[in-house]
Amino acid sequence: MPQISDRGIAMPASPIRKLTPLANAAKERGIHVFHLNIGQPDLPTPQEGLDVLKTIDRSVLEYSPSQGFKSYREKLVNYYAKYNIHLTPDDIIVTCGGSEAVLFAFMSCLNPGDEIIVPEPAYANYMAFAISAGAKIRTISTTIEEGFSLPKVEQFEALINEHTRAILICNPNNPTGYLYTRREMNQIRDLVKKYDLYLFSDEVYREFIYTGSPYISACHLEGIEQNVVLIDSVSKRYSECGIRVGALITKNENLRKAVMKFCQARLSPPLIGQLVAEASIDASEEYLRDTYDEYVERRKTLIDGLNRIPGVYSPIPMGAFYTVAKLPVDDAEKFCAWCLTDFEYEGQTVMMAPASGFYTTPGLGRDQVRIAYVLKQQDLERALFVLSKALETYNALTHKDEA
Amino acid sequence: MPQISDRGIAMPASPIRKLTPLANAAKERGIHVFHLNIGQPDLPTPQEGLDVLKTIDRSVLEYSPSQGFKSYREKLVNYYAKYNIHLTPDDIIVTCGGSEAVLFAFMSCLNPGDEIIVPEPAYANYMAFAISAGAKIRTISTTIEEGFSLPKVEQFEALINEHTRAILICNPNNPTGYLYTRREMNQIRDLVKKYDLYLFSDEVYREFIYTGSPYISACHLEGIEQNVVLIDSVSKRYSECGIRVGALITKNENLRKAVMKFCQARLSPPLIGQLVAEASIDASEEYLRDTYDEYVERRKTLIDGLNRIPGVYSPIPMGAFYTVAKLPVDDAEKFCAWCLTDFEYEGQTVMMAPASGFYTTPGLGRDQVRIAYVLKQQDLERALFVLSKALETYNALTHKDEA
Repeated sequence: MPQISDRGIAMPASPIRKLTPLANAAKERGIHVFHLNIGQPDLPTPQEGLDVLKTIDRSVLEYSPSQGFKSYREKLVNYYAKYNIHLTPDDIIVTCGGSEAVLFAFMSCLNPGDEIIVPEPAYANYMAFAISAGAKIRTISTTIEEGFSLPKVEQFEALINEHTRAILICNPNNPTGYLYTRREMNQIRDLVKKYDLYLFSDEVYREFIYTGSPYISACHLEGIEQNVVLIDSVSKRYSECGIRVGALITKNENLRKAVMKFCQARLSPPLIGQLVAEASIDASEEYLRDTYDEYVERRKTLIDGLNRIPGVYSPIPMGAFYTVAKLPVDDAEKFCAWCLTDFEYEGQTVMMAPASGFYTTPGLGRDQVRIAYVLKQQDLERALFVLSKALETYNALTHKDEA
Repeated sequence: MPQISDRGIAMPASPIRKLTPLANAAKERGIHVFHLNIGQPDLPTPQEGLDVLKTIDRSVLEYSPSQGFKSYREKLVNYYAKYNIHLTPDDIIVTCGGSEAVLFAFMSCLNPGDEIIVPEPAYANYMAFAISAGAKIRTISTTIEEGFSLPKVEQFEALINEHTRAILICNPNNPTGYLYTRREMNQIRDLVKKYDLYLFSDEVYREFIYTGSPYISACHLEGIEQNVVLIDSVSKRYSECGIRVGALITKNENLRKAVMKFCQARLSPPLIGQLVAEASIDASEEYLRDTYDEYVERRKTLIDGLNRIPGVYSPIPMGAFYTVAKLPVDDAEKFCAWCLTDFEYEGQTVMMAPASGFYTTPGLGRDQVRIAYVLKQQDLERALFVLSKALETYNALTHKDEA
């Protein structure tokens, strides 16, 4: 039997999805599983996006342009202008989800062996795309104690060597919900400029910022316009994870030309998804406000609830719809698996993503989990209660074992 | 400004799409362009597939499973059984088009520096995916004079070395329309077995076989079940290029586990596309027969018509909806560009794909083009007439220049 490739072996299993078989088994036993593990919003897709499906008047579901429909890219220009990001349609390349945008950015910018500096904990799939591209992720640790704020510039510079080609940030952050400050963004800008690095900025959660301070996009940073690659997606802002529509945006024309060759090779982004995404840009102010307000409420419910459970600590995330919380357990991965295999409270249990999968430094995040607040208030409250029961039971068992 | 990666530079521009700016310019001048360049069927998508769009009753367009919907994979099992390919739903991984299936197969099976043997001319994007994976395509030339039949086994063995990991075939073939015979498939099977190679078999055109002899899939070959990776897509068989739904199919469980890690990293294949594809499996016998009959007629029109133009030669393709034809010009790429920039006949011109982009051996295919027969009979006839006028004019001009 022929062998699997080295990168096929090195690819990490998704920390978000690898417990799925255990969750499925629990469901087959009749247990209700509260999904706190995955960033799949339960909030409705804009009606404008759903309605367009009913009116697709095509007899052939044909290829769309490799760069994405021009009409969609034109509407995106207006969308970004509202965030003070000024683009032309040519600056925008439509991709199959934000995932493809990350992959194509890495493929086009990095040679095998090149290094990307990423603050950790980080979205685990960056690692997977780096392995696909033969690039190496060097992480700079942020800590729950400091609310996951960015380490000092000296710590970045200590990692920079002749292989360093890029800094990658996710802002607002998945998994921590952290929002970079103006000071931090300027610090990153200076580093990018000084060492002529690429700045990959994943900003798919920009709609979900719970602070009065203005949102600072990588595209707002002056003097590094040719270095910035914006990664975007409609998945989160319109509850449209399934349509697989994202974007790679850069003012760097050479880079766009390289990315377009990868785009041409895969022919085109999803046709129907683009039609849905284009219509969704017309979502009403009310839809956007309701969605936002709902997340604000959920955040309050979740963070208050978590911090009330003995031994649990979560900082207050300023963006996205995640938090990384510390649990009173030695090994959160074991605990998360146990919740699915050995625990139920009145027929219910919780599924969380062990945070260790979001760190590359061995040992970090072992007592942490990522929790997504994508459930209705009432379910979120109940899930917190079930979690508190699970911790109680688990720790009683563990202490009994020790006795 | 930071640099583009080596592979970003090495990536070929698509031979099918790189003349697109010239075609767009011609259209802006009011010229009608007959698209013979791209394998975008004009035949309708099955009504079952179109209808499902109207009945999608979801309030959230959410992620689908990374492997694809189980209900869809179950229906695919029945579809393949009709072709005497016996699978379980677990053997099937749904991908974002056949393109993603090729990429993930290469990523999971090949290390940088590994070699894949591919008969040329070949679908140009294999090269792009090989570059993405850092693998190397070694081509074995087939010739128009021999109707693009497979070279003798000795020629394959001459290429096999310690880096050789796979053979890739496209059957029926894009760009030549060639259909591998039982004898040729057995020859490939023996090579794959002897050297324990992967066999990547792209069979997206299996619906379009214009010969009485039975279709031989790589999945029919005995003794290499763990080596075969089937690449598939609904794009061509249902005129659904835009929905981006393909599949990677293998009985090799280890390989599937590796591929699934790449699938988890990109989260999920397109949701709506899968719904359309699943419904399209129920397309009526009549739809399939009408589509088939239409291609049979077009093939006759195209091949007869081409061979009647002085100096033009096309073998008779036994499958797919392409042919590679030899034109009476020195440089088909120049001629194809000229058709778009400098020629029109009664306000019309033709766009073809220069065949040199389908060869990796320098100099081969310079006087050849790939022509797709995806136009209505009447348009095809007219396009052939316009092509004959273009050749006449071009050669008159060239000879005048020489005089």
